[in-house]
This record gives sequence, C-alpha cells and structure tokens, in this order.
Amino acid sequence: VDVLLDRLREIVGPLHVLVDADVRASYEVDWTGRFAGSTPAVVRPGTTSELAAVVVACAESRRAIVPQGGNTGLVGGSVPLHGEIVVSTRRLDRLGDVDVVAGEVTAGAGVTLDRLQDHARRAGLAFGVDLAARQSATVGGMVATNAGGLNFVRHGGMRQQLVGIEAVMADGSVVSRLERPPKDNTGYDLAQLLCGSEGTLGVVTAARVQLVPSPESTVTALAAVPDLTAAVTAINRLRDRGVPVQAAEGFFDEGMALVCGHLGLTRPLAPSPAYLLVEWEGVADAFALTGLDDAVLAVDDHRRAELWRFREAHTESVNTLGIPHKLDVAVTPSKLDELVRQVRATVAGMAPDAVLVLFGHVADGNVHVNVVGPDPDDDRLDDAIVAVVLAMGGSISAEHGIGTAKRAWLGLARSSAELNVYRRVKRALDPDGILNPHVLL
Amino acid sequence: VDVLLDRLREIVGPLHVLVDADVRASYEVDWTGRFAGSTPAVVRPGTTSELAAVVVACAESRRAIVPQGGNTGLVGGSVPLHGEIVVSTRRLDRLGDVDVVAGEVTAGAGVTLDRLQDHARRAGLAFGVDLAARQSATVGGMVATNAGGLNFVRHGGMRQQLVGIEAVMADGSVVSRLERPPKDNTGYDLAQLLCGSEGTLGVVTAARVQLVPSPESTVTALAAVPDLTAAVTAINRLRDRGVPVQAAEGFFDEGMALVCGHLGLTRPLAPSPAYLLVEWEGVADAFALTGLDDAVLAVDDHRRAELWRFREAHTESVNTLGIPHKLDVAVTPSKLDELVRQVRATVAGMAPDAVLVLFGHVADGNVHVNVVGPDPDDDRLDDAIVAVVLAMGGSISAEHGIGTAKRAWLGLARSSAELNVYRRVKRALDPDGILNPHVLL
Repeated sequence: VDVLLDRLREIVGPLHVLVDADVRASYEVDWTGRFAGSTPAVVRPGTTSELAAVVVACAESRRAIVPQGGNTGLVGGSVPLHGEIVVSTRRLDRLGDVDVVAGEVTAGAGVTLDRLQDHARRAGLAFGVDLAARQSATVGGMVATNAGGLNFVRHGGMRQQLVGIEAVMADGSVVSRLERPPKDNTGYDLAQLLCGSEGTLGVVTAARVQLVPSPESTVTALAAVPDLTAAVTAINRLRDRGVPVQAAEGFFDEGMALVCGHLGLTRPLAPSPAYLLVEWEGVADAFALTGLDDAVLAVDDHRRAELWRFREAHTESVNTLGIPHKLDVAVTPSKLDELVRQVRATVAGMAPDAVLVLFGHVADGNVHVNVVGPDPDDDRLDDAIVAVVLAMGGSISAEHGIGTAKRAWLGLARSSAELNVYRRVKRALDPDGILNPHVLL
Repeated sequence: VDVLLDRLREIVGPLHVLVDADVRASYEVDWTGRFAGSTPAVVRPGTTSELAAVVVACAESRRAIVPQGGNTGLVGGSVPLHGEIVVSTRRLDRLGDVDVVAGEVTAGAGVTLDRLQDHARRAGLAFGVDLAARQSATVGGMVATNAGGLNFVRHGGMRQQLVGIEAVMADGSVVSRLERPPKDNTGYDLAQLLCGSEGTLGVVTAARVQLVPSPESTVTALAAVPDLTAAVTAINRLRDRGVPVQAAEGFFDEGMALVCGHLGLTRPLAPSPAYLLVEWEGVADAFALTGLDDAVLAVDDHRRAELWRFREAHTESVNTLGIPHKLDVAVTPSKLDELVRQVRATVAGMAPDAVLVLFGHVADGNVHVNVVGPDPDDDRLDDAIVAVVLAMGGSISAEHGIGTAKRAWLGLARSSAELNVYRRVKRALDPDGILNPHVLL
C-alpha cells in the first residue's frame, strides 16, 4: 500500500493524502455512527483529472475505492467498510455562473447544497431539491444517490434536476456532458444511468442542474384528515387546480400526542386519526380547494415554522422513547392506507408492546416507520415489514438507496432478471470491481 | 430461415408471422419513404412471453431483429435495412385502468398515442406528450426513442412521464417494474436506461406513465419579437410568474412570408424579424407578463387553430419549393440566436442561392433547419451545419434519435469515452448483437 500512497501523493500533493488516524476518523464513519470502517488513506483530488489519475492508480494496485461527498448518507454507502481508499470529492467545489435564460448552473461534486441554493438565490432563482443535511450534503453525493427531500412533490429529486454530468469511470476515462440542450436524443443517457448508482459505475465529479423560479409567497396548512387517502386526495385537488404544492407531510395522532407531550405544546387542532401538513405557493384562499375544513393556516415565516414543528419534532420525540427500528419505505400513494394498516397489524402481531410511530411524505407515498421496543439488533420485525412493503409492490429504499445496509434485501426487491441486468452493467463498466464494490450489488 | 419461421409460427400462431410481400411491405419502409429494406417475416406477438420466445428463437438462429411500433420514426431506426426479422409490438395493446389518485396508467407497447390520450381524458386527466403522429405512434416506440413533441416545454418528453417499464432483454428474460412508488432508489434505473435506447438494449413491451391534469382553458398568442432570445425571455417571464406555458414555437419573417404566400393568408402582424407562437393555460391577461406588445391573441379553439396555421404550414410551404435538406438540432435556449446566425452564415457561404427556412420549439432550443436548393444527395452542407451545432455544444438529434440516419455523426457528437461506455453497455446487454444491431452504434 505504501507504493500506492506515494503515487497518490504525486498525483494530488502530499497535503491531500490523509493518513493520520485522527484526520481520517471523520471519513471512516457515517454521521449516525452505525457504519464504521477504516481506510489506509483519504485522497482529496483537486481536479477531475487528478481524480481520474487516482482511480487509475488504485485500479493498477487492485485497491477498491469508496467515493465520498458530504458523508451524510444513511445506508453505509460512502464509508470504507472493507479497507477501501476513500476518494473525497469535497475539493471539486467550483460553481459556474448561472445561465439565467436557461435556468441552469454547473456545480462541482464537492459543492454543498446550501452553497448551491445561495448561488441560485443570488441569480433570482432556486434549486428544486432541499434536505435537512443541506450544509454538508454535496452535489456529487446527491446525484450518486438520487437524493429526494422536502420538495420532491413539486420538483422531483436529483434525477429530475439533472441536465448533464461529468464522471470518472473505472478505467480512468472521463465522460463529460454538462451543458446540454433540453432535447438531446443522442445515445444512452449516461447522466440518468449514473444518477442513483451509488458510486458503483463511476465517480461523479460535476453536474449541471436545472434551477426553478423562487416561490413568491408560501402558505402552510396543518389539517385534520381521517386517513392518508384523504390527504392524497386533498393534495391532488390543489394540484389539479394548478396550485403548486411544495410539501405534503402526513402523520398520525400517536405522533401528534407524542410531540405535544415532548415539547409541551398545545394541540393545534381537535384530535384526529391523521394530519396533513401541506405547503403551497400562492394565497391562503386556495385551501378551500382541498375540501378539508378543520385546519390551521400560516403565511408568515414564524407561524409556518411553528406548524412545521409538529412534523419535524417527530424524530427527536421518538428518540426519547428508546432506540427505534427505522425503515424508509414507499408505495404508490393510493396504497398508503393499506400499507399503514398492514404495518400496524404486523407490529401488533410481532411486538404488541412496541410503540409504532409513522410519518412521511404522503404525496410521494414515502413513509418513515419507527418502532420502539424490540431489541434494536433483532431484524425479524424489519424483515416482516420489508415483506409487507414488497408484497404491495413498494420500495424498501425510497430515498436513501441500498448502500451496504439494505443489500440483503435487494434480492427480495428485484427479480433475478433485473439483478442480472444490474450485474451485467456493473461488470461492463467496472470489470475489476474498483468502484464501491461492497455497495448495492 | 424456414426452420426459424416454423418456430416463430409455433410461438405466435401462423396468422401472426407475415411473409407475404404485400403484407410485409408497409413494415419494410418508413413513412417518409427514405428508408426501405426487406425482411423474411414480420412477427406479431400477442403477449410479452410470446415476444420473449420470439427473441430467444431469433437469437438461437443468430437472426437479428428490429422492433417496430407505429413505424413513425424519422431516422431509419425501425425498418429492416439489413434483412432483420421485424418484431411488431402493435398487438401488445392492453390499456390498464387509470389510477386516478396517483395519476398513472399502464399501457402496452402497441397502444397508440391517441388511444392513450382518450383513455386519460375519460378519467379526467391528460397525457403530457403530444405528437402530430398521434394516430400511429405507439407507447413502445415513443419510450424507445424518448419522443418529445409539442408540449415538451410544459411536461417534458417520454423520459419525464415514465414511471415504470416492462421489456424483453436480448437473452429473452423479462424485466418488469411497472407500478412503482415515485421514490424508489433501488438499483440502477432500467426504465431510464431503456428510454431512448432505440431498441438496442431491450424491446419495450409496456410502460407505466404519469398523467397530468387537463388544462382548464388555453390561450394562444402570436407575437412579433426581434429575435429568439426575446422569445425565450418572454416565455421565461410567463413561467417565472407561474403561468404554465404549454407550447412555444419560433419562426422568422421568411417563413411567415412563405406561408402567407402559399396559403393566400394576410399577415396577422406587421412584418417583424421573428415571431413567437406561445400557448399557456390560464387567462389572456397573462400576456402582459411577457413584456411584448405587438401580438394577436386567441382563446377559442377555431381562432387558436388559425394562429397555429402560420407555424404548422411551414413544412408544406417549404416542400413547394423543392426537396429540402432537413436537420433537427438543438442548443441551450440561450444560444439560439447564435445558432441561427451561424447557420445563416454557413448556408450563405456554401449555397448562396439556397432558400433557408428555420423554425422550431424555442423553449427547448430545438430548431428545424430546412434548406432548399442544394442537391438533396449532397451532404456537405448538412455536415457543415452539424459541425456548427456541435461546436456550440448542441445536439444533432434533438427529438428523433440517431437511428441509422445519423450514425455517421455519432462519433462527432460524443467523445470516445462516452462511445466506449455505450459499447460496453450494449455488449453487456446484447452480446450477440440481436437487438437492432445497425441502429445507434
């Protein structure tokens, strides 16, 4: 490995090959602390061609690499669990000028989401994806994992923002197609192939992304709903009338009670089986279109933030009860209530004393399942919930990807025909298994 | 070949293996008549598993196949130019029930666009892609070529409508992931990989697509603009204020004069260097947002159709002058005027007596170049225009794909690193070159 490290130092400069254990530490563990490994070195290339040379050097030494951006992933996809070299993309942080006419900008893989958002804002535009981890999450990591986030209902995820891409392939070649006209049916769409591939097919070094208009005024409503189907219907009524819904979060009375108890808040509405927190661009009057009646509306930022607390405090409130089993699943939105019913029945059957708290992005059919009570190391309940989701044609990895955490379930979620295609594509583009070989497949 | 034909008859039934020359004829030539070949047989499987068996039989006989939908393509990608077996998907014409809550429907590859549109309309929704060839173009072909069309500016192309896909791979395996939650980061996105791959990686047998709300009221405006940048700015002003622009077509005074002369129409506006035909959902008052002043507006269907004539009659008017050289190119919209300037200069230099008529979808940066005068078989002018487009980072195949027609230019439009990835993917998924082997690569 010393020969390789010397070569890496030649490529990126000795300052950017981190071998000191203290300095490496933050690169070797994910931010939840669940996934930890070790690496001989963290390499921080400053340019795409340096990164390409790093990949070639590692390939020639038969050393696998793990690409790493902001290291905010939740599925163990960006940490060196098997002694891989960590290739950090954070120094690839160039931000191009905003093309205001096209509404596009090129960002290096290491640009953080908040920098990209600020940059767009200064040009009078906005970026369509937002995440709580905006200060750390990077463009490269977000493309590699097809990040979703809070405004998915309005603008989609990274896949939908992606105009073009630059990436280093396993053989060290650089594919670069950043500026592209919106219509470009020329060959296979490599940007879409690399998006969501979790660093297994290439290392994203830059992306050109679409920007969106800034919302002029935003209204937030917290409404009582009998179930999630009613929530989805309300959202669809707004959207059918052209109201741009920006966020649509659903949760249940057990969550509302838990949050109010934990934070000492008064219930904002009479108890209801479920609640919808919906946000749109426009005027408060549009709420009438939802057909819902029991609701609290807010238009100023402070009052809006107060309403968001009832949803956002779910995670911290659940954590006060113990270490939860957490799953991030999704179904077609029309099946949300059926999913909830089956998850409740599964938990009641297997762990009748457990506390189950469900919440999520209802417009996307995305539910976060939290179960407190069963031994955190016992996977049987998780397996049973995964089986429920799969039987409904749902996704076991809605926005976080497979990483290493969910590899055991991939064969349940995809057919052998699909897995065969994945493997053929992986083998074709990374025959020696250099790029994140322990992730996804 | 007789052994293969017998086997194909066993699979799909003798009625669906077309060998009669008269019956085959319409499958062997594209609708423009530019691309013509011949096939031993046209096979019309009635189910996905029949189609899979057909692919296996052809592969075992080392006979390549050309998948064909409505055969409305313009680049020779769906006709048997090298004696391939034609596999027609038109009998795969099942239409599922519309999921109104999710706004989705599953359509067999052989469903025509107008049937899909009618089906969506009856459920109170609409399909986001529209094409002039709507009576013939099929869902399978539209997915395989990532069709664009008239409403791209509002809803994008097929890639953006695609929820899930079913396809037969070269080894006869069937990948099927139709119903999918909107968020599903599980493995590589095969739907996106197959979309736009022109039948070279798999044969699309069904697609699940997103539907959109029906527009409540539509306004069409024909406005005078000094250049295309002004047109793009006007469109962006509408969009920045949340006005849903549905179509945005640009053309020039030579086209207006030609159309008015050909159809005997009076000019609707005082002569202007360029014109913008823009259509949006909403009220006529929104036109004030464009900042343009000289315009004719229409809200009823008849008057709107009259305004569309000035744009739509371009093709037939050009054809009265002779056989045109035609190119379908695109650049980032902010570069449209520069593209127009360079194309004009190129034509003026190489063919000073030619008539040049330009028009296209300005919001998408997509320009249709028509040059009448030079020998139709002489490609030098086309080569020069392609070089101009490529030097600007543009696309030489904006909405039609590469097919066989543009293969000679693919190596100019894509780097050797990109071509290498394409070839590796193709070889991985179709090692024996069974699927449309003369298309794209």
